[in-house]
Amino acid sequence: MSKEIPYKIYLKEDEMPKQWYNVRAHMKNKPAPLLDAATGKALKVEDLSGVFCEELAKQELDNDTAYIDIPQEIIDFYKMYRPAPLVRAYCLEKYLDTPAKIYYKFEGNNTSGSHKLNSAIAQAYYAKKQGLKGVTTETGAGQWGTALSMACSYLGLDCQVYMVKVSYEQKPFRREVMRTYGANVTPSPSDKTQVGRKILAEHPGTGGSLGCAISEAVEAAVSQEGYRYVLGSVLSQVMLHQSIIGLESKLALDKYGEKPDIIIGCAGGGSNLGGLIAPFMGEKLRGEADYRIIAVEPASCPSFTRGTYAYDFCDTGAICPLSKMYTLGSSFMPAPNHAGGLRYHGMSTVLSQLYADGYMEATSRKQTEIFEAAEQFARVEGILPAPESSHAIRVAIDEAVKCRETGEEKTILFGLTGTGYFDMYAYEAFHDGKMENYELKEEEIAASIAKLPKVPGVNA
Amino acid sequence: MSKEIPYKIYLKEDEMPKQWYNVRAHMKNKPAPLLDAATGKALKVEDLSGVFCEELAKQELDNDTAYIDIPQEIIDFYKMYRPAPLVRAYCLEKYLDTPAKIYYKFEGNNTSGSHKLNSAIAQAYYAKKQGLKGVTTETGAGQWGTALSMACSYLGLDCQVYMVKVSYEQKPFRREVMRTYGANVTPSPSDKTQVGRKILAEHPGTGGSLGCAISEAVEAAVSQEGYRYVLGSVLSQVMLHQSIIGLESKLALDKYGEKPDIIIGCAGGGSNLGGLIAPFMGEKLRGEADYRIIAVEPASCPSFTRGTYAYDFCDTGAICPLSKMYTLGSSFMPAPNHAGGLRYHGMSTVLSQLYADGYMEATSRKQTEIFEAAEQFARVEGILPAPESSHAIRVAIDEAVKCRETGEEKTILFGLTGTGYFDMYAYEAFHDGKMENYELKEEEIAASIAKLPKVPGVNA
Repeated sequence: MSKEIPYKIYLKEDEMPKQWYNVRAHMKNKPAPLLDAATGKALKVEDLSGVFCEELAKQELDNDTAYIDIPQEIIDFYKMYRPAPLVRAYCLEKYLDTPAKIYYKFEGNNTSGSHKLNSAIAQAYYAKKQGLKGVTTETGAGQWGTALSMACSYLGLDCQVYMVKVSYEQKPFRREVMRTYGANVTPSPSDKTQVGRKILAEHPGTGGSLGCAISEAVEAAVSQEGYRYVLGSVLSQVMLHQSIIGLESKLALDKYGEKPDIIIGCAGGGSNLGGLIAPFMGEKLRGEADYRIIAVEPASCPSFTRGTYAYDFCDTGAICPLSKMYTLGSSFMPAPNHAGGLRYHGMSTVLSQLYADGYMEATSRKQTEIFEAAEQFARVEGILPAPESSHAIRVAIDEAVKCRETGEEKTILFGLTGTGYFDMYAYEAFHDGKMENYELKEEEIAASIAKLPKVPGVNA
Repeated sequence: MSKEIPYKIYLKEDEMPKQWYNVRAHMKNKPAPLLDAATGKALKVEDLSGVFCEELAKQELDNDTAYIDIPQEIIDFYKMYRPAPLVRAYCLEKYLDTPAKIYYKFEGNNTSGSHKLNSAIAQAYYAKKQGLKGVTTETGAGQWGTALSMACSYLGLDCQVYMVKVSYEQKPFRREVMRTYGANVTPSPSDKTQVGRKILAEHPGTGGSLGCAISEAVEAAVSQEGYRYVLGSVLSQVMLHQSIIGLESKLALDKYGEKPDIIIGCAGGGSNLGGLIAPFMGEKLRGEADYRIIAVEPASCPSFTRGTYAYDFCDTGAICPLSKMYTLGSSFMPAPNHAGGLRYHGMSTVLSQLYADGYMEATSRKQTEIFEAAEQFARVEGILPAPESSHAIRVAIDEAVKCRETGEEKTILFGLTGTGYFDMYAYEAFHDGKMENYELKEEEIAASIAKLPKVPGVNA
């Protein structure tokens, strides 16, 4: 190594990527198209543009353009909190006494506390450019809602967030951060929408669900002039925007002649993992390099490792299109799990295809194992990680320990998606020995898989 | 300007300061010595070293050494979260439509959420080097306790934190962050100390106070073999460690040929302000440059602007030595104010001397004005500021607006000490219009000033 590698590698602002990378362009087997649930027909841009704004509908269906220019306004916004540091985990390496070199890309140095802001600003920008008044969305734990509020505030766009009522009440801090950024936050179910009123009538006093909040946000978007609906994960457009994570990581590693052997990311809907691996996967698809790529999911919501590859609804409420993905079934209700961002029944259609084609691996871990890794990491690296991110930390530590045993000097890269400041109830349960691991039974998965939608000529 | 100034200036790791700067060395009028309250005699290193560890006792009394080497172990720890970015507030400038150039040094990019970590690691390091088992401290809102927990965890030192009981109960998140870093957090008053038991007997059910927590922490330090007490602000040693803030800021500005006209910092005990201004004040003291330096304090706790320059106890419990400072009286109880870090009756003895000698100005602002500035800043610069830091933002905005009116292109530098993630109840009160400004009456100040300690030959 000619240059000494610093603890943190920051690209210069003029080195930041000017284009997003669309991995779909280099996939031999393209991701399966979104289908209209009623007709079973593939959706076109015009079908999507009533819900999404025009440019995003195009990006959602673009399987061919490899590089897409990042508009200057988005680059300017990125400069507020990017480039994100690529950190050499010297302290963790020392603590683990491993010959492995560990790097992590830290996306938590912004007020939303995660990588979600990378796509929020893109989606808000295209909505603004189309002359819309505002956007609607749902949020569970609140990271996506916060990110979108920040982006809309910056652009002067109205932001309506439907927040799962139980989170709205239990996480007042997140709600207040969104209000600080001028968002209109409504506990869901609400009496603002037809679907909300219906659910309230049927289930008085309900704490709501993400599925219900999605339904309300979509209804709010299509029933108001000048509004569209936006979503923070799962979609291919989101993965495109998140490619900034991987592009910056690769540029930073290239500067020091480093090449990862193993790339690890947590996987919920797939936005972070897809973004982190994008340029590396591109090289792998083009046969230019090889990488071992590992998705880590919670044992209580294991769509890759125990799900089925089939067409399913993207949402619990079954109002969205059908997407072919690894799924536990859209009626699957994951057990209480503090990694709220990973509690999704399905997986990005792009990542699902790549996994089906053998380009990546997946593994699942139990909650207490995750928090053990989180605490170890916090104590030696100083950063308090989000439970979601800690899935990647767990497997990075495990791989580094294997290196200690075999003596191999592997280079490990993982994605540290965010911080855990708003997850302290979970840490408290862990400290007090009250955190439980839910043993997901085969029959539970079978029951929701049995309810997969039947679409003529698609699912059996 | 030959080089374009980026949004964020990060020094390279090898450019980071290798020495702290001790502004006392260049003061003509040295800060007044700490006095023993019983005898009125100036304290020496041997008097302090029963409470503080040896090296820190020396630093506390060293008025002569201008530059003190930062031990390599501390530099390595600093690399985990430093250099902190110097941010050019392009978005704020545009929003304010001002010809002023605004810079801020952001110290919130670490898990403790503030600059406190800069001194916590130094104090923990010297305790470890002296072969101590652990340290004790008090914490109110929890930022200092968190910083110390992180530092102790890294060095393998026991950390005992006495946390004001009402905060312990109302701020469970902060408490859990400290526990994540292995600290032993005790709600104060507790039955672990004599003074705690006495207070509990006299005031059953009390929520505690910072004064009481200090008393417990000091007792715990002196009554356990191998323990010392540490403090996060006010002390001259803390200001020395915090000089890293100003040194990095100056290096970053120098790289781009920039020179601030106005330097602004919030002032509670003075650790952040003293650290930010240190090298600039040094130039001013040596007659090499001139800067306008402004301390900003809350209207509800205005030690500089409405206090008296006199000897007073550093703590409410009157067990600590006497220090000459601008004070509202150690019996002064500030009204509820969400900027917990600025609720201190006195001020650093170093800054007090500099203020008395006319080297800096001070101003105070009301709470609602502070939160207006905080929200404006969050929306355009993306960072959610701590209420404490927002005092500096308020005055920076005011000065930039003056520049808009006069057309002057002044360069403004302010200290953004930390983030507000754990202050959302205060933001909520602000959003809901429930935040009140307390009008501090002259007779309240007079009443606590009347109780200043009478020391023969010192205070009248």
